[in-house]
Amino acid sequence: MNPDTDTVRAVLDAVKADGRTVLTADEAKTIAGAYAIPVPPSGVARKVEDAVALADGMGYPVVLKVESEAILHKTDAGGVLTNIGNGDQVAVGFAQVMENARAFDAGADIAGVLVQKQVQGGQEVIVGGVSDPVFGKLVAFGLGGVLVEVMQDVTFRLAPAGRDEAASMLDDINGASILDGVRGSVPVDRAAVAALIERVGALITDFPEIGELDMNPVLASEDGVTAVDLRILCDFDPDPERYRPSQQEILSAMTRIMQPDAVAVIGASEGEGKIGNSVMRNLIDGGYPGAIYPVHPKADQILGHQCYPSVTEIPGNVDIAIFCIPAQFVAGAIAECGQKQVPGAILIPSGFAEVGEHELQAEIVQVARENNVRLMGPNIYGYYYTHKNLCATFCTPYDEKGQVALSSQSGGVGMAIVGFSRSAKMGVSAIVGLGNKSDIDEDDLLTFFEQDPNTQVIAMHVEDLKDGRAFAEVASRVSKQKPVVVLKAGRTSQGARAANSHTGALAGDDRVYDAVLKQSGVIRAHTLNDMLEYARGLQTLPAPKGENVLVLTGAGGSGVLISDACVDNGLSLMAMPDDLDAAFKEYIPPFGASGNPVDITGGEPPTTYRATIDLALNDDRIHSLILGYWHTIITPPMVFAQLLGEAVGEARAKGIDKPVVASLVGDVEIEEACEYLMDRDILAYPYTAEKPVAVLGAKYRWARAAGLL
Amino acid sequence: MNPDTDTVRAVLDAVKADGRTVLTADEAKTIAGAYAIPVPPSGVARKVEDAVALADGMGYPVVLKVESEAILHKTDAGGVLTNIGNGDQVAVGFAQVMENARAFDAGADIAGVLVQKQVQGGQEVIVGGVSDPVFGKLVAFGLGGVLVEVMQDVTFRLAPAGRDEAASMLDDINGASILDGVRGSVPVDRAAVAALIERVGALITDFPEIGELDMNPVLASEDGVTAVDLRILCDFDPDPERYRPSQQEILSAMTRIMQPDAVAVIGASEGEGKIGNSVMRNLIDGGYPGAIYPVHPKADQILGHQCYPSVTEIPGNVDIAIFCIPAQFVAGAIAECGQKQVPGAILIPSGFAEVGEHELQAEIVQVARENNVRLMGPNIYGYYYTHKNLCATFCTPYDEKGQVALSSQSGGVGMAIVGFSRSAKMGVSAIVGLGNKSDIDEDDLLTFFEQDPNTQVIAMHVEDLKDGRAFAEVASRVSKQKPVVVLKAGRTSQGARAANSHTGALAGDDRVYDAVLKQSGVIRAHTLNDMLEYARGLQTLPAPKGENVLVLTGAGGSGVLISDACVDNGLSLMAMPDDLDAAFKEYIPPFGASGNPVDITGGEPPTTYRATIDLALNDDRIHSLILGYWHTIITPPMVFAQLLGEAVGEARAKGIDKPVVASLVGDVEIEEACEYLMDRDILAYPYTAEKPVAVLGAKYRWARAAGLL
Repeated sequence: MNPDTDTVRAVLDAVKADGRTVLTADEAKTIAGAYAIPVPPSGVARKVEDAVALADGMGYPVVLKVESEAILHKTDAGGVLTNIGNGDQVAVGFAQVMENARAFDAGADIAGVLVQKQVQGGQEVIVGGVSDPVFGKLVAFGLGGVLVEVMQDVTFRLAPAGRDEAASMLDDINGASILDGVRGSVPVDRAAVAALIERVGALITDFPEIGELDMNPVLASEDGVTAVDLRILCDFDPDPERYRPSQQEILSAMTRIMQPDAVAVIGASEGEGKIGNSVMRNLIDGGYPGAIYPVHPKADQILGHQCYPSVTEIPGNVDIAIFCIPAQFVAGAIAECGQKQVPGAILIPSGFAEVGEHELQAEIVQVARENNVRLMGPNIYGYYYTHKNLCATFCTPYDEKGQVALSSQSGGVGMAIVGFSRSAKMGVSAIVGLGNKSDIDEDDLLTFFEQDPNTQVIAMHVEDLKDGRAFAEVASRVSKQKPVVVLKAGRTSQGARAANSHTGALAGDDRVYDAVLKQSGVIRAHTLNDMLEYARGLQTLPAPKGENVLVLTGAGGSGVLISDACVDNGLSLMAMPDDLDAAFKEYIPPFGASGNPVDITGGEPPTTYRATIDLALNDDRIHSLILGYWHTIITPPMVFAQLLGEAVGEARAKGIDKPVVASLVGDVEIEEACEYLMDRDILAYPYTAEKPVAVLGAKYRWARAAGLL
Repeated sequence: MNPDTDTVRAVLDAVKADGRTVLTADEAKTIAGAYAIPVPPSGVARKVEDAVALADGMGYPVVLKVESEAILHKTDAGGVLTNIGNGDQVAVGFAQVMENARAFDAGADIAGVLVQKQVQGGQEVIVGGVSDPVFGKLVAFGLGGVLVEVMQDVTFRLAPAGRDEAASMLDDINGASILDGVRGSVPVDRAAVAALIERVGALITDFPEIGELDMNPVLASEDGVTAVDLRILCDFDPDPERYRPSQQEILSAMTRIMQPDAVAVIGASEGEGKIGNSVMRNLIDGGYPGAIYPVHPKADQILGHQCYPSVTEIPGNVDIAIFCIPAQFVAGAIAECGQKQVPGAILIPSGFAEVGEHELQAEIVQVARENNVRLMGPNIYGYYYTHKNLCATFCTPYDEKGQVALSSQSGGVGMAIVGFSRSAKMGVSAIVGLGNKSDIDEDDLLTFFEQDPNTQVIAMHVEDLKDGRAFAEVASRVSKQKPVVVLKAGRTSQGARAANSHTGALAGDDRVYDAVLKQSGVIRAHTLNDMLEYARGLQTLPAPKGENVLVLTGAGGSGVLISDACVDNGLSLMAMPDDLDAAFKEYIPPFGASGNPVDITGGEPPTTYRATIDLALNDDRIHSLILGYWHTIITPPMVFAQLLGEAVGEARAKGIDKPVVASLVGDVEIEEACEYLMDRDILAYPYTAEKPVAVLGAKYRWARAAGLL
């Protein structure tokens, strides 16, 4: 398709010149034509005889619709008549539509009556384009009629959407099977629907002033699609584009910020309990090997380190300045950081937008931009980068090195990350507080973590995205290589309200977040604990090489619960090949369940566990293994843990590294067994059948989105 | 309504005499008339002139439908024509319907063509009656057309359903708001729909041989309802009624079984590692104060207790006999129990239905019934009743006394219950293994726990219900007094398949389980961990006195996550009254968030937590309190735990006992703080914002179902 952009430009310019924002039906039709969007023949009649002539020309039946900028919902105004079968009916209908419209709104400026050839048959769908405050231009697709209005069965994609993206929307709605034809109706032309979505996406991208484009209904049949009703609204006064450094600039600053060689602490203090003291202690106690420069107006030394009255007077290079001073002094100190060419200011202080001080926050952003300083925060606990032994925070130190990078917008969640990590012995590469996100946000972090060899999994607690489109773009790229987990807080309207009062941020509609995060390959966590468990598990599990999951249990009851959880998490129980079934049967009692789950039964000794686990690990057709262990006297928990550890260890030594997760049920000894297994990078959870499956499910969601399966 | 049962009886007897199971349209119409089910005028025409005469008599438009027992889905056969406007069209249509039907099935016996007055307008709904293998007679309600076929938006109730139950079905479907009228359509007559459901429920209850009754569609308008299409199928060969003792018989046997004064151990052994040895040890080590009688063919004494060669030779009364002998000896020993008038046989042995030995299981059930012995199991770990210090199991002893009774069908889940309880220090009254449920099942347990003063909460792991109707009846009654939690395993088709291979049980459709459990006031848990946490939490939390929930946090970020969870769990954040808002504001910083959640902000000292918690506890308008604590240096975890413990303790001393749950986020010290609070019966969870809310939500679900709110 080669769109006729000149025509669209001309129409939109004329609308703008008119001082209008709502396009007439004729204007909308012209734009549709320029982008090959099929619409029925139509014309606007100002007089009754013109209407009859138009209808005679296009053939019957026709639809009559009032044409007035003042009347947006024509049906509600009695302004739509369908099934008009001949010229006489057109004449009567014309009068009736005009009368109804005047009764509805006596002052409305009525341009006439739209006469449109009535499209027969087909499934009603809705295709649209919207401008989302978070994600910008989006295309929307749903089923028409009550399905979208009552069931809200609609999905979204970032615009422009390629043909495949557009086509995937048809499978993404709950009523998807309706498009395949139900009860005698024929399947719709899916390619035509996808092409229509693609064109809408191109149109609203090419012409950003199109704020809203609504085709409701589109009639989709086996022969193609027709946009029966088309509304276009413009916004000629869009929000200014957000400032965004180039990727190279982001990376160069973020690398120095996340892996600094020299740190200044502005407001360092000897006074115990003061933030400037806690930060100094954490740097020192955390074993930070770089230079530490306390900045203090008068002090000579703080905690054994030479002090400077200003960051500008520090002799060497400085990579970050950690701010431990009251809000009103921040702007001035940022300017000094600029003079000193410090790339990053870590703004622990609160007292900005989160308490309504929006102007003060705007001021520091302005100063920072002028001085080429990136800001983290304000209103944050700081951050950790373990591979540099950096604890740039007033909280407790944390130094367990690993490959998960986590961020949070809230300090409480940040502390939960630290506590959970310590309790679960989860190694991390970084924990970052983003707070008010006046500048550095999730896409800056993703850009850094993307190329950070110390980071293999990224998990983020997000209350709002300042620039959802930038996030989606970076996340789409990063998630191909490294799993990105997002806990989006403020999902629900009550939750969103609390988010507003907390950060002053406007949370977007959750359905939009859900669709765009999925499109970006992001794994969504629905609870804080899920985010933490996914982070831990995704780091540990290797990528699966296929969809075949085998469940192997000592307790049939666990097998049932695990199977339920597999369905809930979109995992496929492998159909058991006959030869493999026979191989398992050699080890298990005749009454053990064959098939999948394999139930070795509760009375079996360690050798049975070991033999069947080996079988599962060594068979290439099995891609992932879920174990359901049941505590018995014959195979006690630690015996099971040791044999599983050995079996997986031997397989790994042979180069076989498939995901293995385990559910352990039994008395308290299973806790120790789980810990033993976790220490050996085998995911094992006590008193739950479902958690290991959920974590494995998260790994599969990522692997599919990354195109590995 | 006084149904004309004689007429229905006559119709059904005639159908049965005919050897048919499918009723003709005329027969169905007669039955509808007898139960005041509105149907349109209709008649069956064998000849074209009869069809025209019928149509002329009832007025146009009419519908023509082929009438043939062989053609169940008339539309698929081209056997339905609508909008027939006059006699000529009837004539043409008659021929066409007959021709289509013959083309569809040349051998079909065609009785003629049904001529039916066409009903105009209204919302299509579906009302039906079905015979479910688990729950027996059910009424079904859903929206017509694609909504039920594609979206499967349908709900069920046990039949008969009273008017209120029936009316509640209208709110239970996802598309409920369609019934209120959307986009210009008028609301349907809800009372008429409910009355129709009620009548269907009465009909299928009065005449159990009606196996399936399907009204699709029913047209519901503001003026009432009309069942446009009505199909009735009979099953004259129903399953035999299940044997069931009277409630008094159940209670009298179950009381002796659960609280025995004397226990025989059949197959007691000195041999370590043997089940008969483990059971003896657990009885003795568990401190069981009653008489213990080992039964062994030769031994004199076992573990210091006098042995008997048979249960019949024990001198005193015996309440239960615990079986530790191989499957093939079980039947004989049950007969001896019968001679000795032992009311309960605890069948630990496996080797019955679970390994395909259905006949052996049927035999022991037969012997038990003849000898008036109730059976627990077979294939179980045994059971615990802590208030009698009874550990009648081969597993580990457990003696932490409390008020939760738990049961499981699977041994693995049973061991998880023991382990979780020990780990969480959860007091229990009983833990019962039900295994194959050859006799004693969940409704027997509920009947006992209902009147057991030591039990206040009941939690059950269920793979299948042998008699869902009996369970629902008892659960409906018990749940009014004591919360009943059910974890239904085999929810999904994959899960259900595993259940089949495990217990040989046919799991019903999960939508049916969901609706009937909800109707019965049961709180459904969706994971093993949820079941365990609900059990613990429901025991601890007092019943709320109203729906007003207040969230009070030190971390705004926790407040957002907690608010999300409140919506997910159906909890209502109280709209904050002005005076209360002002009262909170006295204690919190000016930038703290007012409203609900109340965000006291992270920098506040213990006094602020204490003052605001006291305010919330003492204000009658607040019915439940959710706390979101954030670990800070100013208010460390144990300081928070102590002040919360004091505040709640003082309130309780004043007679104020409202549900209080807490989310603690922070470093690992919060684990100790949570334990401190749990020890004081205040539910507190680390590293999660959502779990406390889910547990509170479970308490609210129960309180609403029990009619307390």
